[in-house]
Amino acid sequence: MGMKRPKVSVIGAGFTGATTALMTAQKELADVVLVDVPDQEDPAKGKALDMFEASPVQGFDAKIKGTSDYADTKGSDVVVITAGIARKPGMSRDDLVNTNAGIMQKVTKEVVKHSPECYIIVLTNPVDAMTYSVFRESGFPKHRILGQSGVLDTARFRSFIAEELNVSVKDVTGFVLGGHGDDMVPMIRYSSVGGVPLHKLISSERIEEIIERTRKGGGEIVGLLGNGSAYYAPAASIVQMVEAIIKDQRRLLPAIAYLEGEYGYDGIYLGVPVIIGGDGVEEIIELDLTGEEKDQLDKSADSVRKVLDILK
Amino acid sequence: MGMKRPKVSVIGAGFTGATTALMTAQKELADVVLVDVPDQEDPAKGKALDMFEASPVQGFDAKIKGTSDYADTKGSDVVVITAGIARKPGMSRDDLVNTNAGIMQKVTKEVVKHSPECYIIVLTNPVDAMTYSVFRESGFPKHRILGQSGVLDTARFRSFIAEELNVSVKDVTGFVLGGHGDDMVPMIRYSSVGGVPLHKLISSERIEEIIERTRKGGGEIVGLLGNGSAYYAPAASIVQMVEAIIKDQRRLLPAIAYLEGEYGYDGIYLGVPVIIGGDGVEEIIELDLTGEEKDQLDKSADSVRKVLDILK
Amino acid sequence: MGMKRPKVSVIGAGFTGATTALMTAQKELADVVLVDVPDQEDPAKGKALDMFEASPVQGFDAKIKGTSDYADTKGSDVVVITAGIARKPGMSRDDLVNTNAGIMQKVTKEVVKHSPECYIIVLTNPVDAMTYSVFRESGFPKHRILGQSGVLDTARFRSFIAEELNVSVKDVTGFVLGGHGDDMVPMIRYSSVGGVPLHKLISSERIEEIIERTRKGGGEIVGLLGNGSAYYAPAASIVQMVEAIIKDQRRLLPAIAYLEGEYGYDGIYLGVPVIIGGDGVEEIIELDLTGEEKDQLDKSADSVRKVLDILK
Amino acid sequence: MGMKRPKVSVIGAGFTGATTALMTAQKELADVVLVDVPDQEDPAKGKALDMFEASPVQGFDAKIKGTSDYADTKGSDVVVITAGIARKPGMSRDDLVNTNAGIMQKVTKEVVKHSPECYIIVLTNPVDAMTYSVFRESGFPKHRILGQSGVLDTARFRSFIAEELNVSVKDVTGFVLGGHGDDMVPMIRYSSVGGVPLHKLISSERIEEIIERTRKGGGEIVGLLGNGSAYYAPAASIVQMVEAIIKDQRRLLPAIAYLEGEYGYDGIYLGVPVIIGGDGVEEIIELDLTGEEKDQLDKSADSVRKVLDILK
Repeated sequence: MGMKRPKVSVIGAGFTGATTALMTAQKELADVVLVDVPDQEDPAKGKALDMFEASPVQGFDAKIKGTSDYADTKGSDVVVITAGIARKPGMSRDDLVNTNAGIMQKVTKEVVKHSPECYIIVLTNPVDAMTYSVFRESGFPKHRILGQSGVLDTARFRSFIAEELNVSVKDVTGFVLGGHGDDMVPMIRYSSVGGVPLHKLISSERIEEIIERTRKGGGEIVGLLGNGSAYYAPAASIVQMVEAIIKDQRRLLPAIAYLEGEYGYDGIYLGVPVIIGGDGVEEIIELDLTGEEKDQLDKSADSVRKVLDILK
Repeated sequence: MGMKRPKVSVIGAGFTGATTALMTAQKELADVVLVDVPDQEDPAKGKALDMFEASPVQGFDAKIKGTSDYADTKGSDVVVITAGIARKPGMSRDDLVNTNAGIMQKVTKEVVKHSPECYIIVLTNPVDAMTYSVFRESGFPKHRILGQSGVLDTARFRSFIAEELNVSVKDVTGFVLGGHGDDMVPMIRYSSVGGVPLHKLISSERIEEIIERTRKGGGEIVGLLGNGSAYYAPAASIVQMVEAIIKDQRRLLPAIAYLEGEYGYDGIYLGVPVIIGGDGVEEIIELDLTGEEKDQLDKSADSVRKVLDILK
Repeated sequence: MGMKRPKVSVIGAGFTGATTALMTAQKELADVVLVDVPDQEDPAKGKALDMFEASPVQGFDAKIKGTSDYADTKGSDVVVITAGIARKPGMSRDDLVNTNAGIMQKVTKEVVKHSPECYIIVLTNPVDAMTYSVFRESGFPKHRILGQSGVLDTARFRSFIAEELNVSVKDVTGFVLGGHGDDMVPMIRYSSVGGVPLHKLISSERIEEIIERTRKGGGEIVGLLGNGSAYYAPAASIVQMVEAIIKDQRRLLPAIAYLEGEYGYDGIYLGVPVIIGGDGVEEIIELDLTGEEKDQLDKSADSVRKVLDILK
Repeated sequence: MGMKRPKVSVIGAGFTGATTALMTAQKELADVVLVDVPDQEDPAKGKALDMFEASPVQGFDAKIKGTSDYADTKGSDVVVITAGIARKPGMSRDDLVNTNAGIMQKVTKEVVKHSPECYIIVLTNPVDAMTYSVFRESGFPKHRILGQSGVLDTARFRSFIAEELNVSVKDVTGFVLGGHGDDMVPMIRYSSVGGVPLHKLISSERIEEIIERTRKGGGEIVGLLGNGSAYYAPAASIVQMVEAIIKDQRRLLPAIAYLEGEYGYDGIYLGVPVIIGGDGVEEIIELDLTGEEKDQLDKSADSVRKVLDILK
């Protein structure tokens, strides 16, 4: 029956969801279905149509459909879940747990029903717990469910370093473990600019400030926007993971993956380095950690467990 | 002092302005300054920062700055004006004239002061009149001021045709003259799919419906979104014009240009085919029109003049 | 077991084959296998390795393998055949027939054996007859075998027009029917620049000269190179067809397709407008021709038949 | 007079030069002039024309001109020198010195005459000495003359690592100092995969083998091709440097730069980490070296000096 274009469904047509749809289409990765709840179906359709109308100018071929009917997601290869309540200024991520867990349940049921073979990438906050929630609800094997946080945290870190040194963002690499934002564990010794270790180029004090800014990176945008949270960099981060799966790239990226003994944790979703390829999370890379790094990662894991406790 | 990255300033950090900034940066066309009024400065900064944080992931090098201080736009090569009140459901474009003309005056004064050599592309509606308004205020030669409408109208037409025939958007060409939306003059005989004339592929009745849908294309999105207007395709359309100037591409595109006798009009800005290159509007292409086409273009020109009368 | 990267095999690792492999990899369309005869296996390996070493710099993920063993092509989605003797200065295309037909037979047998579900694109000259030869040998349904000539002829025509008018190549469309080179039937009335018909922009005499140059386009390059024939534009043209299949783009392109009654011909491969998508040649578009165009196309068909007669 | 497209001239229209021209044009970095000696002018014209004919299909706007007249290079922003005798199987790089130094002299005189403000990137082997030779002949300030070797050596190392681990080339970083090939100083501790240090992922023995393969990387291709040397990865490497200058990217790349005391050397061109931006070599990054690394770098510097002695 010939070659078929892959299909990506994005659940939640807010700014992050819509930008995810746009960037997926711009890269010609797949046809895209943008799903929202019934009373947001028209805006979802409007955004999808507007993107499609941009396609002749930008020169990308992708069908983009807005809908509230999960039947339209049938046979998706990858599903991205961005649905949920967004973090407001002053709101802790933990406050979001119960509402968003409920949303995850409903969404997952529908996703699984129409795309029983898909890979699911979760962005909804608190993302470690929400990814776990989707995993439990889906009944899917662990390698087909993953969450996004580390690509974004790393991207923020990289952009701050590039700005600090006035160098190309292309040459800055970085790496984080653990939870999103406050709980992230930055692996400074694994960060470099064109291969040159960070500490050769920036003072320790300044690196610490940049780490701190990265931790609060989501809040910085929330504070500036006044009314909403970041969506460009989050969407770009998700799309990198979508691309890694669809193009079977086997990229080594930080992602929220299900641990069964790795790093000494069992039965939780946590941010670790993984290989993402055509079969989702194909490997988990275990690093030797220093005592301090392990302490930070434990703290991160504790935070995740506390949220999971709220869930139960 | 070596090669310098071009600089593009986008006035108005709403959805269209922000998306224009993003797409300009994604294509590595220039460093970008995103300007809004003082009480919107923080959101402009937030959007700019969020985009910059996406740059390591998407792999583009561009500085992106949000600001309310026009001094930051100093020495821009191209300035895009998207500022102004957006069209609301039910609002005619004419209602926007007076408010937006006032905004054009203020903005133009600042733009000209800091970038006396720049090219200006206007998107604010009603765009023909607003482009004229910027032209008059700027004192710039006519080839350095142009407005966007035809690229967008054509993009919509092309996307509808591609959808109708289930073919690649890459192969559909189209062309419009005259005003934006209701007043556009579609040149069907100049539209094709991979070189094959449209009327070989689609019935006249269906083409008429698609033209009608194109005319109402902006309204269709407004109706669906419920609260706002299109921004993806408008931004993509502007960025194509920005790219044509910055890369000196000499593209033949429909754009709003100042006419001094061409097509029988004098002293108005109207949508016509032009060559856009490194020196802005480098040529105006004059086509032979059928009687019907000329009538429609006259009607379009009349609409523009009526708006200009409001301006005086 | 998850998403798999498509696979493209290129038979013939000469300049055109190698450039086809490179451009396929640069676009991340597929993993690529570059096949040549045993005594050319090492050069094929060398070129493949050199390309792969370029991939970290250009940022594309694709495995590229040089080989003389058809077992390496197993399970290809698309196979491109460039193998054969190249046209030398002074050599008519007809001289190539017998040698190249023999090569087609051998190659096709191997291709079919290892990739029974693939799509095959033929470039070997004389291409209409060689495509037929592959079709007959393969036993594949007609929509899975096609030949390249029209994309290249059109590309040449478009580049000459862009040069003549000093405009962007992006805005020039063109269209040809019939055979390659001398036998091509240029559809001038279907060519435009940004939608503006050619005859509005260039005199008829000049258009005729440009058509003539296009007809002789292959020979012009052969004459300049002195020792070899064109490969950049031919490779780009093939890759556009490969992309249309792999990404299921449904592009309307001129291609060599098997006719069963269309345009009044039966049982020959001839250049006509087709829709190329995930299932190969998905449709043949029939155009009304003027008497002159039909005469030229008949001449083209006769040339093809004469070559087919040599084949028998 | 408005925005002007940058201009890049490539001296030497062999495979590397031609591929450099193609990749520069594909990225729409500049108009390109491809220069060769008078009796190779026609092949240069043929290749340039063939590339230009590929441009409508690949969708890039760039004028590409083949010539033997340096007047055509007038006002180039960047000039790439690939001219010279290529390394043949069995030939040491030192054998090339005298012939190629003579070529550098002639070429530099012409380049400087027509483009007194340009940046020059040298690829001709032995590249450290040839870069020095161009520097001396040009009278240009040191930051405007640089040589390519480290980007290519790093690219080879990265591709071998990606292959070894079956991961994306995008995630492998590496770094080399010193001379090209045999004399390169691989900085293993500065190499990583997605931030994860190499020695966590590959055994020391295997890393050593990969380093050894990298050192002999040029020879491996020469051996396979049988008749010629690598050109895809070399061209991609040069174009990355061209892009860094034209887009003022300030990339941190290994390049051959003029040392005046850095790393303890004075008055030689040697491979070191530099920042390449709009003003050429904008900074030289000094790293702390281990004793072993410093020894290797000394050996590398000695090799360069020995070649320079031949030059005198």
